[in-house]
Amino acid sequence: MSPPASISFARGAPSLDIVDDAGLRAAADRAFSQDPSGAFSYGTSGGYRPLRDWIAERHGVDSERVTVTNGSMQAAAFLFDALVEPGTEVVVERPTYDRTLLSLRERGARLHTVAVEEDGIEIDELERRLDGDASPRLAHIIPNFQNPTGCTLSADKRTRLLELAERHGFLIFEDDPYVALRFEGDPIPSMVDSAPDQVVYASSFSKTICPGVRVGYLIGPPDLMDEVRRRATNTYISPSMVSQAIVNEFCRSGAMDASLDHARSALRDRAGALARALSRELPEARFSTPHGGYFMWVEMPEGTDVAGWFDAASERGVSFVKGSDFLIEGGENAMRLAYSAVTPEEIDAGISRLAEAAHTAGAVS
Amino acid sequence: MSPPASISFARGAPSLDIVDDAGLRAAADRAFSQDPSGAFSYGTSGGYRPLRDWIAERHGVDSERVTVTNGSMQAAAFLFDALVEPGTEVVVERPTYDRTLLSLRERGARLHTVAVEEDGIEIDELERRLDGDASPRLAHIIPNFQNPTGCTLSADKRTRLLELAERHGFLIFEDDPYVALRFEGDPIPSMVDSAPDQVVYASSFSKTICPGVRVGYLIGPPDLMDEVRRRATNTYISPSMVSQAIVNEFCRSGAMDASLDHARSALRDRAGALARALSRELPEARFSTPHGGYFMWVEMPEGTDVAGWFDAASERGVSFVKGSDFLIEGGENAMRLAYSAVTPEEIDAGISRLAEAAHTAGAVS
Repeated sequence: MSPPASISFARGAPSLDIVDDAGLRAAADRAFSQDPSGAFSYGTSGGYRPLRDWIAERHGVDSERVTVTNGSMQAAAFLFDALVEPGTEVVVERPTYDRTLLSLRERGARLHTVAVEEDGIEIDELERRLDGDASPRLAHIIPNFQNPTGCTLSADKRTRLLELAERHGFLIFEDDPYVALRFEGDPIPSMVDSAPDQVVYASSFSKTICPGVRVGYLIGPPDLMDEVRRRATNTYISPSMVSQAIVNEFCRSGAMDASLDHARSALRDRAGALARALSRELPEARFSTPHGGYFMWVEMPEGTDVAGWFDAASERGVSFVKGSDFLIEGGENAMRLAYSAVTPEEIDAGISRLAEAAHTAGAVS
Repeated sequence: MSPPASISFARGAPSLDIVDDAGLRAAADRAFSQDPSGAFSYGTSGGYRPLRDWIAERHGVDSERVTVTNGSMQAAAFLFDALVEPGTEVVVERPTYDRTLLSLRERGARLHTVAVEEDGIEIDELERRLDGDASPRLAHIIPNFQNPTGCTLSADKRTRLLELAERHGFLIFEDDPYVALRFEGDPIPSMVDSAPDQVVYASSFSKTICPGVRVGYLIGPPDLMDEVRRRATNTYISPSMVSQAIVNEFCRSGAMDASLDHARSALRDRAGALARALSRELPEARFSTPHGGYFMWVEMPEGTDVAGWFDAASERGVSFVKGSDFLIEGGENAMRLAYSAVTPEEIDAGISRLAEAAHTAGAVS
């Protein structure tokens, strides 16, 4: 018997059907025809000028505040290199993106973890810590459809967070790759737009165009951006102009808007399918259906060890990321399910198999 | 009076007329049509698989030894991060690429500089140093059409260098972006091809396709490559798949070979024009006409201070890089002239203006 087709709830990446390949072909052709000297030259570490300008305009800032990088993880790496030394205090959400945790810990940061609720980071807890002995230089926040919880920081909490940052003199790192993927409810203004000197904002085209372009960016105070660009020059001279010129054409031509409409609608269907499948197959599971983005955070009853089903799920071709990967401690009863790379049909089949694995492992009755 | 048009002998970059823009458009179209899932996905930190395979095949190595990066300076940065700590001894050529010097000094390397002659690094000097108190971990060598001297390491010296590396237990970092740009004489085999476990090889498509793609690569021992890829994953997940898929198509379709023929012929003309113009306008200048690559190293009589003409040249729209930028000390009477970005006509005009600047500054009589 052949093994079942693999169904991945693990990777935060889009399936190819929500990537506009024809639009990307056309964008490359136009970009290379219209601006060969921009697309094919070194350029500078700040990025491809027309794309920097497009990003700056969207955020109503001067383009000197914008630095485009080879993906937004590279942007975070430059930022951490500039700001984080061994012992530097950094606030992170609990749970949060595993690669951010790793990156900060590798630099010797002293982490203050603050819980994430339905409406984002628990501000009262953060305030108590700041009134206590915490004096962070930076607070890393994923405001929209957070990875891994899928939660979104409310407008009220954004305001309070900015107040705390001003009072306690720390910088907010607003890490926002999923903002454009809202499929439910109204958008909430970005913190950087109201307080550009207190916030460093990062986003990416990985989730709105495709991951393979590896184009992300930072928006931040001019001095800090100069320092980031100095580091970028010394590391790679300049980010891929070819990738950026394609992204620029894709954004400016309107292909981006059409592609986003399609992606949002597909993601809405997938999130809905996932919620229904979980309710049907694993009624013990607790979760909230996200209003955008790629991820659903699923908690099983206290005492459940999801690591125990991991192998059984694997044998059935189903993968997910254990909740404990996103935490310094705890999360054994949780998992992150990404619905970005799977169709509703695959979701149905995948959750059935996952429930079967859980039953086999004796984790649920 | 309007200022004269700018003529740059400063930047090691190709002029747009030796970049095959139509070939790049066609390569993008084919790459995106034929392998959208490869071009548009994250992929892995080792790089786009078909391109890794193409590079591996060219060098007769297993593709696990190949790591593709966002330009070869990023490759060097990962390599130095893996191997160089404060106090680590590294051999570098004297003079050498200014960014390499900076990168090593920023990491606190202890540098042993060894002079470059017409046929490459002075091996006898290196041997004496190794028999003395030098025990380097790494020797950085630009074997072909060196930056900034334009010199090429002879076959005999390559053999001796490999013997020294084996005897003294250091790794050779064979940094080879210009190898394909030979326009005179026969190619000399790469050191990595005969001793893949003693050499880490780096090259780039910046000089053979265009700088804007930002695609470079390393070939090295498997353990070291694993470590480089681990660092790459933690820094940016993966290099631009879009850029690499275009490069792969460009290489495999034959566009690369046609484009290289064209570039070599243009570079031969430019190097020749530069040599003639220098002989005519600055007869005191000493130089050798390179057999490939982008650069000519020009020495003026001992005691000349080329920094003294820099501003006068600038006022005449002519730029170059001072020799002292490529050395820890010395080089005040030298300059690097890049002929890659200027036509023969521009070279003629530029060298006339440069000579005028030198005379004005009283540097030559």
